[in-house]
Amino acid sequence: MDRNEVTKKILTTKVKNKLSWAAIAEKIGQSKEWTTAAMLGQMTFDARQAAVAKELFGLTDEETAWLQIVPYKGSLPTPVPTDPLIYRWYEIVSVYGTTIKELIHEEFGDGIMSAIDFSMDITREADPKGDRVNVVLSGKFLPYKQY
Amino acid sequence: MDRNEVTKKILTTKVKNKLSWAAIAEKIGQSKEWTTAAMLGQMTFDARQAAVAKELFGLTDEETAWLQIVPYKGSLPTPVPTDPLIYRWYEIVSVYGTTIKELIHEEFGDGIMSAIDFSMDITREADPKGDRVNVVLSGKFLPYKQY
Amino acid sequence: MDRNEVTKKILTTKVKNKLSWAAIAEKIGQSKEWTTAAMLGQMTFDARQAAVAKELFGLTDEETAWLQIVPYKGSLPTPVPTDPLIYRWYEIVSVYGTTIKELIHEEFGDGIMSAIDFSMDITREADPKGDRVNVVLSGKFLPYKQY
Amino acid sequence: MDRNEVTKKILTTKVKNKLSWAAIAEKIGQSKEWTTAAMLGQMTFDARQAAVAKELFGLTDEETAWLQIVPYKGSLPTPVPTDPLIYRWYEIVSVYGTTIKELIHEEFGDGIMSAIDFSMDITREADPKGDRVNVVLSGKFLPYKQY
Amino acid sequence: MDRNEVTKKILTTKVKNKLSWAAIAEKIGQSKEWTTAAMLGQMTFDARQAAVAKELFGLTDEETAWLQIVPYKGSLPTPVPTDPLIYRWYEIVSVYGTTIKELIHEEFGDGIMSAIDFSMDITREADPKGDRVNVVLSGKFLPYKQY
Amino acid sequence: MDRNEVTKKILTTKVKNKLSWAAIAEKIGQSKEWTTAAMLGQMTFDARQAAVAKELFGLTDEETAWLQIVPYKGSLPTPVPTDPLIYRWYEIVSVYGTTIKELIHEEFGDGIMSAIDFSMDITREADPKGDRVNVVLSGKFLPYKQY
Amino acid sequence: MDRNEVTKKILTTKVKNKLSWAAIAEKIGQSKEWTTAAMLGQMTFDARQAAVAKELFGLTDEETAWLQIVPYKGSLPTPVPTDPLIYRWYEIVSVYGTTIKELIHEEFGDGIMSAIDFSMDITREADPKGDRVNVVLSGKFLPYKQY
Amino acid sequence: MDRNEVTKKILTTKVKNKLSWAAIAEKIGQSKEWTTAAMLGQMTFDARQAAVAKELFGLTDEETAWLQIVPYKGSLPTPVPTDPLIYRWYEIVSVYGTTIKELIHEEFGDGIMSAIDFSMDITREADPKGDRVNVVLSGKFLPYKQY
Amino acid sequence: MDRNEVTKKILTTKVKNKLSWAAIAEKIGQSKEWTTAAMLGQMTFDARQAAVAKELFGLTDEETAWLQIVPYKGSLPTPVPTDPLIYRWYEIVSVYGTTIKELIHEEFGDGIMSAIDFSMDITREADPKGDRVNVVLSGKFLPYKQY
Amino acid sequence: MDRNEVTKKILTTKVKNKLSWAAIAEKIGQSKEWTTAAMLGQMTFDARQAAVAKELFGLTDEETAWLQIVPYKGSLPTPVPTDPLIYRWYEIVSVYGTTIKELIHEEFGDGIMSAIDFSMDITREADPKGDRVNVVLSGKFLPYKQY
Repeated sequence: MDRNEVTKKILTTKVKNKLSWAAIAEKIGQSKEWTTAAMLGQMTFDARQAAVAKELFGLTDEETAWLQIVPYKGSLPTPVPTDPLIYRWYEIVSVYGTTIKELIHEEFGDGIMSAIDFSMDITREADPKGDRVNVVLSGKFLPYKQY
Repeated sequence: MDRNEVTKKILTTKVKNKLSWAAIAEKIGQSKEWTTAAMLGQMTFDARQAAVAKELFGLTDEETAWLQIVPYKGSLPTPVPTDPLIYRWYEIVSVYGTTIKELIHEEFGDGIMSAIDFSMDITREADPKGDRVNVVLSGKFLPYKQY
Repeated sequence: MDRNEVTKKILTTKVKNKLSWAAIAEKIGQSKEWTTAAMLGQMTFDARQAAVAKELFGLTDEETAWLQIVPYKGSLPTPVPTDPLIYRWYEIVSVYGTTIKELIHEEFGDGIMSAIDFSMDITREADPKGDRVNVVLSGKFLPYKQY
Repeated sequence: MDRNEVTKKILTTKVKNKLSWAAIAEKIGQSKEWTTAAMLGQMTFDARQAAVAKELFGLTDEETAWLQIVPYKGSLPTPVPTDPLIYRWYEIVSVYGTTIKELIHEEFGDGIMSAIDFSMDITREADPKGDRVNVVLSGKFLPYKQY
Repeated sequence: MDRNEVTKKILTTKVKNKLSWAAIAEKIGQSKEWTTAAMLGQMTFDARQAAVAKELFGLTDEETAWLQIVPYKGSLPTPVPTDPLIYRWYEIVSVYGTTIKELIHEEFGDGIMSAIDFSMDITREADPKGDRVNVVLSGKFLPYKQY
Repeated sequence: MDRNEVTKKILTTKVKNKLSWAAIAEKIGQSKEWTTAAMLGQMTFDARQAAVAKELFGLTDEETAWLQIVPYKGSLPTPVPTDPLIYRWYEIVSVYGTTIKELIHEEFGDGIMSAIDFSMDITREADPKGDRVNVVLSGKFLPYKQY
Repeated sequence: MDRNEVTKKILTTKVKNKLSWAAIAEKIGQSKEWTTAAMLGQMTFDARQAAVAKELFGLTDEETAWLQIVPYKGSLPTPVPTDPLIYRWYEIVSVYGTTIKELIHEEFGDGIMSAIDFSMDITREADPKGDRVNVVLSGKFLPYKQY
Repeated sequence: MDRNEVTKKILTTKVKNKLSWAAIAEKIGQSKEWTTAAMLGQMTFDARQAAVAKELFGLTDEETAWLQIVPYKGSLPTPVPTDPLIYRWYEIVSVYGTTIKELIHEEFGDGIMSAIDFSMDITREADPKGDRVNVVLSGKFLPYKQY
Repeated sequence: MDRNEVTKKILTTKVKNKLSWAAIAEKIGQSKEWTTAAMLGQMTFDARQAAVAKELFGLTDEETAWLQIVPYKGSLPTPVPTDPLIYRWYEIVSVYGTTIKELIHEEFGDGIMSAIDFSMDITREADPKGDRVNVVLSGKFLPYKQY
Repeated sequence: MDRNEVTKKILTTKVKNKLSWAAIAEKIGQSKEWTTAAMLGQMTFDARQAAVAKELFGLTDEETAWLQIVPYKGSLPTPVPTDPLIYRWYEIVSVYGTTIKELIHEEFGDGIMSAIDFSMDITREADPKGDRVNVVLSGKFLPYKQY
């Protein structure tokens, strides 16, 4: 058994029981973004969160233990994603990558925007020309150290 | 001559003359995000914008003409970026890609968040624990068509 | 269980029962192009369509539920397809890709032809020198947004 | 000197002289699709067509000779294209590739749709919800030979 | 079940029953080259050929049905083959590829040698310095179409 | 200077002077297949052959010396060729590779068909349904050694 | 069943029964190098050798038959090996490859050192500064043929 | 200027002056294997060796300085070499890699054969059936350390 | 059975029994770094260490035998690791690789830092600005041999 | 002009003037590790450091300006490095990557060791069995944020 098998069981149970990520997140007590990432095998549960998941998805003790082990992260099967929704994000990195780099460096100097001390918020914005997906990414700026 | 050579000339002139992207954007009359992407060879200028660039960077007539030609887009030299700042964005797609997919589909159904009818806004958020980079991405939702 | 296993069951049943895609599409009530893509795990069924598929292929309740989940798209096992029929399409993109780009930009300006608000129609054209495959692709033009 | 250098000269001259592909095609006397592909180094000119190009773009004798040499084809710099417009076509092959294969085989049996005995027609369709790009691809069906 | 599993069963039975490809081809009534390719999952059987295979290899009805479905072609596990015998063919394409291109174009003009309207004949040529493998490849020339 | 530059000069001169490979081969005194491969930088000239090439293409002494140095072989820019004519040969290796392997082993046992003690002959076969390209490949069989 | 499964059974049995390759080779009656390669699925057994293997590893009749079928060769899971011992050999090819090429061509002219008519001998050389692995590779020189 | 340019100058001069590696090595005072590798940019010269090279190839002071800088090693343009002579060595690693690993481990335990404390000797062995290339590789065994 | 299956069993048992690597290492009698690598299938156990593992993880005799076989090393599923923690190490090699090379060569001359005669020590350093991970890597310098 | 050209000029001047990295670092007033990385185009200079570099390497004003622009980082030409010294570091990541991950997570929980708030110290340790390279890596631990 490994974490992937627990992820598959969670996904199958979610489909069978017609659960939504928003409802699951409310039970877990975290944002829907963090909760979904955790359920998909990218984040680590604490004991209480794992206990909620155990009940929600009917997990065994061993499966519940796996949720508290730090997973090997990376959720995509290929370096360049084939799924159109995910590819559009890869395209944003490809087309705007150097732009993002220039503007963050202009504002902050040399360093990075953290993908660890990081949060994400996905919302729907109503728009008469067609609703929009708005995503706010927030990451701590980490300056390169001189030594 | 091709668009890449115009981009290199713009970058070299920007360094030599110590211009900032924010100041350039104000002259162009668009956001700093769109303007930087355009200057880096990812967007297409209209005649007025090209004329401003011509003056700012001392471009020739032919170089100015290239700015109004739709460029072959893609700003990175490798499929997986090596630069740490840009890699963090690739990592976000890798770690959170399936999460983003699940949540957009849960809210909107099958379709994508457009990377064309799209805007981006990068700001600094002061934070006593270390300032943060906040990025808002906004893309129109496009549903898959049945036929 | 995941969507791939449902796809395999559909394909096996289709072979065993000697069904045609055209006949299946008529039952589903959509074009043969959309229906085949959906059956091959690339599109999402609504409840009525899923119910038709359930009966046609003898699916279980869980298998039927999977058809209504948005799938991870991408139907090919390698970035460059090895199958000669599919490769010819990849070759068209390789040989004519820059031509298509130039002509769409000349007519419409900067932007893309959508692969989401998109339809396809495949027909046979009788020809004394050998019948032809005619394919009509229709995609909405999406202009790049300035901001 | 090689064909790529002639292609670059043609493109630069086209930008400088603000020529359109449609106007060039009319001079060459072929469709805009074939003509653009030829100018971009993917097709072979006959003597008359090369003479027209010579005049249009101010080519030397040697450059004109190269246009009549069969080129090494393939117009894209990477196996998976990074340009969003061209990528959408790659995505169509990725998402619909197995669908296209199934439907052509259902109609014609084992074989391929030729990318050599092939033509393409790109047109604009007015649509109140946003104009559409319509592309008709026509390729002779070639059955696999038994022996 | 899919075609690969039928291929494996055919191969295992061939080894167990010590059949030769030449003997199998005679039963099928086609050349040994076409027959072997078909048995290895690269060609499509008609009803009579499938019936012969059914008896020869003890196939079930469903397995026999799969033989008449057009397969997803491509028989090698990696883009550059590791097996020395097959690699030598890849090496011929690598070393002589541009030579073959030049000579076919010199004789026929722009176009290709078909790999669909194609046959192959492999024979042994006795030679006192060591017997030779002689392979005749015959493919219809297909000229590029102007339009 | 290296061999590639000599190859480019030979190709440019051939285009400028409208020479054919067949005529060049006659002067060199070898088959058109070997001669073309040699001119394209894949084979090594002896002193007499190099002298003929020197005169035909107006080479300098140093360029002539390079023709007699064993070249780094491999004539294609990518592992999977993009040019349609050359790709068809790659496709033959992909589709028929395991077939060729099975049939050579059935006839000869374990070993390979040499790509070194090897010759190739390309001819046109007139055919009312469209002329054919016939290619005869002849390679010595080399058995694996036991020790 | 395929050859890989026989290889795995041989390896498992070897571990369980604590056999050495040297002892196995003595029973087979060939060098330890050839025998190990054969047991690892890279060489073909004759009937007598297969019978010895059958007894040594408790193989079934079908498993024994597979040993006499020419295998699909290539023993490594990735193009660049990750195992440090094997990587050192890849590194030797990378660092010394052009050196080996220059020196063999200087001595023999254009051609190759055969990897088929080839043998290998691995021995330990005692050395006070640390024992050494000595490997003798012997391959027939095959000159390129002119035709 | 970098080391590659010095390597190119050495190679060009060697061709122009018709020098042999064996003669160069004698002047340098090392084996022909080490000397060739060093001249091809894979090894580092000491002051005396660099002085000999300076005279032999007419190098400038700066070029001579580069010979004493440790180079970035790796002499091949692609991960899988295309040149047939060098490919055969890659094939030996692919086919015999696991064999070499098994036999060294059986004799020495866990560790590697060094590619640094390493030497190579290439010789011709006369053989009535065709001369052979014999290569002796000698590398110190380095055991994995426990700690 | 192979070594991977033993590794999986060890990992599953560790999770189920909530063991720590530090505690396991103490039982094995080696550092936590070596012990973890060994348990993850990268190092070879001696008889005593294997006996301890057997008891700790409830291994069978055959599983215990596998621990004493030298494994095929390499612990990552992709050439560029997707897991953020491991990627940061890859990034260090990418960003600082040439720096490390320059400084080791400046101090030691041409050669390498061994990854075999190598040890590693990972410790926590308390720091008011956030604790730090300190890693000491120690490898014997191996000079390139001249011959 | 771009940063790479400045890096090349620095390297060439360093070779010509026989400077050491340690001496350069002393002038810059930072560690030899940071200084070397900066000179190799991986770090950003402040105005004072750039002025020192200007004098040391005879840079122009524009070249000096480039040193203060944040560079596109990544110092290696291929994803898997070919240089043996740098490869050993890649090998450490490959063999010990999962070990490092397990031990950091066991001590700190889920998160990463920063490669930005990071320092490195390379020293020589005298050892009668052969001197050792000791490298201390120190990176701040960054815990994954829950939200």
